[in-house]
Amino acid sequence: MIPQQLIARKRDGHALSRQELEGLLNGYLQGDVGDDQMAAFLMAVYFEGLDDSELETLVDVMLRSGNVLARGRVAGPRVDKHSTGGVGDKVSIVLAPLAAEMGMVVPMMSGRSLGHTGGTLDKLESIPGFRTRVSLERFNTVLDSVGCAMVGQTDEIAPLDRRLYALRDVTATVPSLPLITASIMSKKLAESLDGLVLDVKVGSGAFLSRIEDARRLARAMVGVGRARGLAVTAVLSAMDRPLGMSVGNALEVREAVACLSGEGPDELRDLVVELAGEMALSAGLVLTLEEGRRRAGDVLAGGGALERFRRLVTAQGGTLRYSRDNYGLPVAPITKVVPANRGGLISRIDPRALGYGVIPMGGGRTRQDQDLDPSVGFELCVQVGDRVSRGDPLAIVHGASPDDLFVGARVLEDAVRIADRLAGDPLPLVLERVVSG
Amino acid sequence: MIPQQLIARKRDGHALSRQELEGLLNGYLQGDVGDDQMAAFLMAVYFEGLDDSELETLVDVMLRSGNVLARGRVAGPRVDKHSTGGVGDKVSIVLAPLAAEMGMVVPMMSGRSLGHTGGTLDKLESIPGFRTRVSLERFNTVLDSVGCAMVGQTDEIAPLDRRLYALRDVTATVPSLPLITASIMSKKLAESLDGLVLDVKVGSGAFLSRIEDARRLARAMVGVGRARGLAVTAVLSAMDRPLGMSVGNALEVREAVACLSGEGPDELRDLVVELAGEMALSAGLVLTLEEGRRRAGDVLAGGGALERFRRLVTAQGGTLRYSRDNYGLPVAPITKVVPANRGGLISRIDPRALGYGVIPMGGGRTRQDQDLDPSVGFELCVQVGDRVSRGDPLAIVHGASPDDLFVGARVLEDAVRIADRLAGDPLPLVLERVVSG
Repeated sequence: MIPQQLIARKRDGHALSRQELEGLLNGYLQGDVGDDQMAAFLMAVYFEGLDDSELETLVDVMLRSGNVLARGRVAGPRVDKHSTGGVGDKVSIVLAPLAAEMGMVVPMMSGRSLGHTGGTLDKLESIPGFRTRVSLERFNTVLDSVGCAMVGQTDEIAPLDRRLYALRDVTATVPSLPLITASIMSKKLAESLDGLVLDVKVGSGAFLSRIEDARRLARAMVGVGRARGLAVTAVLSAMDRPLGMSVGNALEVREAVACLSGEGPDELRDLVVELAGEMALSAGLVLTLEEGRRRAGDVLAGGGALERFRRLVTAQGGTLRYSRDNYGLPVAPITKVVPANRGGLISRIDPRALGYGVIPMGGGRTRQDQDLDPSVGFELCVQVGDRVSRGDPLAIVHGASPDDLFVGARVLEDAVRIADRLAGDPLPLVLERVVSG
Repeated sequence: MIPQQLIARKRDGHALSRQELEGLLNGYLQGDVGDDQMAAFLMAVYFEGLDDSELETLVDVMLRSGNVLARGRVAGPRVDKHSTGGVGDKVSIVLAPLAAEMGMVVPMMSGRSLGHTGGTLDKLESIPGFRTRVSLERFNTVLDSVGCAMVGQTDEIAPLDRRLYALRDVTATVPSLPLITASIMSKKLAESLDGLVLDVKVGSGAFLSRIEDARRLARAMVGVGRARGLAVTAVLSAMDRPLGMSVGNALEVREAVACLSGEGPDELRDLVVELAGEMALSAGLVLTLEEGRRRAGDVLAGGGALERFRRLVTAQGGTLRYSRDNYGLPVAPITKVVPANRGGLISRIDPRALGYGVIPMGGGRTRQDQDLDPSVGFELCVQVGDRVSRGDPLAIVHGASPDDLFVGARVLEDAVRIADRLAGDPLPLVLERVVSG
């Protein structure tokens, strides 16, 4: 195996055989293929893609580079949800305990904030004491006792994926559909699932803004699942606006807990119910999506999901108080209300601007190793389509310093547009679904 | 400067500003940009190219990463020739002393064999004692006393080019027109030349087989020269067949010395005279190319160039005997005549097959660090268009072992095609010329 010959074949648009691609990837794992060679290969893949067979080989080598989770002692179908990342997306925090309460086992491994997109781990860690880095043993104990567990990817899971992701992060090869597909699916397949629901975001706040690209990614992930006998459903959902009314780690946990309490924004609740319904369907707990939605709605209204979330927090070392206003979550020392500078219609709320906007306030990161201030962020007072008068509050900026408030207010004035009419129709919350077979 | 943002801009088809590209390249020189990031950038350049301004910036940073040769004490215009590489191309060995004898100063820095293409340094090193690695001081001494010197690229010249070339070699990013252009021109500009002639090979034995690609490369190199005030002429010459009748290091030196003695194959002599004429024209020694050719032919016939080559060999530590058959060059221990297995017309001699064919015999290399056996190779007895009868000798294989001869004979039978008619018209020896302005 001569690495540069294999790189050249991909560069020239040819597919590598299973043996060739395995040789290259195993060579990388063993140190015979350098980071420089793998970086060139990944950039060639960015331009030339991978065919179905290459994609399956990549997933397979990633999966086999580490361990696969044992299924544990608790009964019930194992189901997980994965989102491609958005702004204000606190769905997982509501969905995991809800699905567990519906009778599913949810071994959820999530990611961190990066760039304009938030990450479930950072949100959960805003809960005092909550630990997302736990041993596999502890993970299984929590899963067996609570029915769900929410942790970061452990070192045992798909180490090749972790190495390739770190390389892609510094070489501008992250946004490649087959590489994204393999990265997501290798981790999810390692969870030994019975069903998987993918939330593929579409719109200006998603990393894929166009529905055609989101559909291609959804089909590729569903195809990889099918090839390995895993029932996968992909839901394409709107990210042309933030999900819900808060952006910022502790603020989003507060909103998620409100949703678990039967309150909170309609869109957050609607998407949670949709995805929980899909999870129940993919797990075989219900016969139709409609039945799944109905059960999810009933369980959420019953309060059992909130109680299960409290058990999860306790099991993972965290403390969530019962006080209604902030549950003991960190609170920013100062806030500022940003008023409308004219009357009119809220024509657009730019999710990407808000996502990037929390970074200079310390609520997001541009590199994987940066620390966060969980308390900062934006609390929106308006939604797209609302009518406002001059001086009405648009949002509240939560910051650690007057500088934060100044920067945050500028971001908000730019992100929230007021006009005489809508800039275009907002996307429907759920655009379409892609299912196996 | 965030390297991955600059890589992403190139990946997405944008041009980098001078400041951005300088930042990336200087960051690489200083260790802030890794080999992995540079490899990804180079692969992005392979797909998206560089515009004129980026190319000039790359050349400029390469040039300024090292030293530029001082002009020395000897009078006369400084002129060099560079070839893009072919099979059987021993032109430099004849041309450097010929141009010096015509009144030019020729500070020639050449390369090594790699893949199917031969390298002047390896050919020269088949002369016992000949040293191609010398200090810059020694190089200038030889140049001042002989009028020409033939060495390898020293560490002082364009070290960024050397680092990038080593990286491209292992990451399949060698065949990129702007990267090739920058690599060649940065080294040639460091020679402080008054004129430069480029021999851009075209055909199946060249790394650019199509004339359109060769023309693009020629124009890019001429453009870079013009932007820096260097008169550059590019000659597109035939490489759909080997140049001359020998392929192999010592065998090619023998043929070059024969050419300097007024003997040897017509095509070798014709191309040498053409390129020497172009060098004289670019140096301002003659007013027309025709006059340059005539002077080159006269000087070659006069024997002074051979005498000057002997002085060059001696000055660089080598010994070239006067015996007519092999000049004291290393001789392979065994040879084998390969006969025609049918009668007909020599319809094609595949240069690439012959170039690759010397590698398993030890006469070429697939990696930069491999040692060579200078004595092995092929001595052709026929040219394209010759008529042969069954049993007539096609070529003589020179090898170190019976295995070599067996392998070499197989290569020859494959490379030399006999048919009832020509496979197509051979390319004219000189296809066209590209000049500044």
